[in-house]
Amino acid sequence: MPRNDTVRALDWQGDHLKLLDQRRLPAETVWLDCHSAADTADAIRDMVVRGAPAIGIAAAYGVVLAARAAMARRPADWPAAMAADLARLRSARPTAVNLFWALDRMQQVVDSDPADPLAALEAAAVAIHEDDLTANRRMGELGAHLIPAGAGVLTHCNTGSLATGGYGTALGVIRSAWSGKGLSAVYADETRPWLQGARLTAWELVADGIPVRLIAEGAAPLLMQRGRVDWVIVGADRVAANGDTANKIGTYALALACKAHGVKFMVVAPSSTIDLDCPGGDRIPIEERPPEELLWLGDRRVAAEGAGAWNPVFDVTPAELIDVLVTERGVVTDFGGAGVRALING
Amino acid sequence: MPRNDTVRALDWQGDHLKLLDQRRLPAETVWLDCHSAADTADAIRDMVVRGAPAIGIAAAYGVVLAARAAMARRPADWPAAMAADLARLRSARPTAVNLFWALDRMQQVVDSDPADPLAALEAAAVAIHEDDLTANRRMGELGAHLIPAGAGVLTHCNTGSLATGGYGTALGVIRSAWSGKGLSAVYADETRPWLQGARLTAWELVADGIPVRLIAEGAAPLLMQRGRVDWVIVGADRVAANGDTANKIGTYALALACKAHGVKFMVVAPSSTIDLDCPGGDRIPIEERPPEELLWLGDRRVAAEGAGAWNPVFDVTPAELIDVLVTERGVVTDFGGAGVRALING
Repeated sequence: MPRNDTVRALDWQGDHLKLLDQRRLPAETVWLDCHSAADTADAIRDMVVRGAPAIGIAAAYGVVLAARAAMARRPADWPAAMAADLARLRSARPTAVNLFWALDRMQQVVDSDPADPLAALEAAAVAIHEDDLTANRRMGELGAHLIPAGAGVLTHCNTGSLATGGYGTALGVIRSAWSGKGLSAVYADETRPWLQGARLTAWELVADGIPVRLIAEGAAPLLMQRGRVDWVIVGADRVAANGDTANKIGTYALALACKAHGVKFMVVAPSSTIDLDCPGGDRIPIEERPPEELLWLGDRRVAAEGAGAWNPVFDVTPAELIDVLVTERGVVTDFGGAGVRALING
Repeated sequence: MPRNDTVRALDWQGDHLKLLDQRRLPAETVWLDCHSAADTADAIRDMVVRGAPAIGIAAAYGVVLAARAAMARRPADWPAAMAADLARLRSARPTAVNLFWALDRMQQVVDSDPADPLAALEAAAVAIHEDDLTANRRMGELGAHLIPAGAGVLTHCNTGSLATGGYGTALGVIRSAWSGKGLSAVYADETRPWLQGARLTAWELVADGIPVRLIAEGAAPLLMQRGRVDWVIVGADRVAANGDTANKIGTYALALACKAHGVKFMVVAPSSTIDLDCPGGDRIPIEERPPEELLWLGDRRVAAEGAGAWNPVFDVTPAELIDVLVTERGVVTDFGGAGVRALING
């Protein structure tokens, strides 16, 4: 791998899936072994693996593990025997559509009744994984093409190799722009409450030799006011047919600040993140996670006993605040008319 | 004290100043004794005491301690002998103008050559302290008058009894509105990086029996989108003559989100926070604190070694995003023309 792309978070071993445990980064680099679909579903729910594309890939391998176990238990009707495992994978997290997209693709393989179903399922999962990496490199090129040399960029959450099959979506664009024409500065915000920016993006960029400066999320408008950022570049968990984009909580606030300061706003997401069945952002389910993620920091209670918390972990940025959506199939700048739909169907 | 106003953070003991150590809340309730101006300046710099009005009050008591020590050392020229102490207090933090306002007021007492200078200085410091509490109760009434019964409110940072002589500025308005006509919900955002919202505001509201729900700062626009907030109510560290308002980093982002959602934005600050010598927000010095406040959480490194950080701890909200400024002298809704200046000079 080139010097600026050394990190991988998913490693398929043929009989089990190894996941880099993202709850423990950057303090510890620990791999977790998933030997079953249940292990995999739990790892997705507990955020051992996170990031919409990575969740989809992990779920695909989870189906392979489910099928193998079902064939061993009930060879005659293994597709029915793995229904509970598939349901468990499907309910692991609600917002990222890549999970459902990957499960649907794996179901199509089952339904096609292949001669060697286990081999076919494994090949399909590996293809989802490899296609994601290929898509990310392509999006890196397409996105970097839009960014002028010497620009300052700000990103949110983690959208890099840790969140995908490798290279990353928004962080892939930043990798490509950094290696290609060069950037004046790469800022990452912390991304509360899970601190994906502080814990994961900073770790990944340091590992790959790209200088990064962290900011508090609340400092983004001041950074823009000072003229230090030309583009905000983010990933997506689900893009609706009208271009409305669900992404990590805090994304919408950044988009509003961009609009106020004339800073460009780019969403980078593979076509597997686009949900044409979802007409607009108000139809995207927004996951709410336990209040403890706000009330505690690690093993320390940070808020007084008796305080409550509301912890939605995604928000929806309306299409009118998005300057460009970059996918591996091309870019969308006009979300009216056919927009996103033309990209997928065309 | 009434049931919804039980917290105090500054306690003058006649010969020393006791400060509730806000670095250790909510885990521990520990008081720190300041026996000298240097102790007091360090406590301000290290954020044992924070909040613009509380910083001003602490500095005033610090001048009393400086004067007493100077009189003991060099009775003949004690005003000159305390110059270094005053300079140390003055340089403790740069953004909140209340610090300079309080030091200037104490200097006027020195310059007036009173018969019993120590008694006069102590009386002046106590008056600054008591006047602040009186101003806060008045602002509470004025601000609460603007908020409809059953409204939902969101506040930022800590602007309560911990940040003032008691009762609070923005949190005083929330106290008054809660006790008076009633509110449907009180939300507090965490306020990174120092977590004043999570650590201090939640503690203070729980202590006073006002239910509070924490959110991540990035969740504020979603909360507004869902119609759960009618007013965002914040304090200030310095209000320029044109109404531009410096306050805790993240305030400007909230104001932008308010504008996008038609949510009202209220600044609550005593007249000691208004700096008529400062024509506009671009002239307000913005403190940058150590990057470690972002790179570490308590004693745990959260970002990878090698990552940098930019940690400005205030930002400036332009007057055009502020619906109303509440002071103890009245409210300002039109920042054009005489605006803030008329309030102070009139």
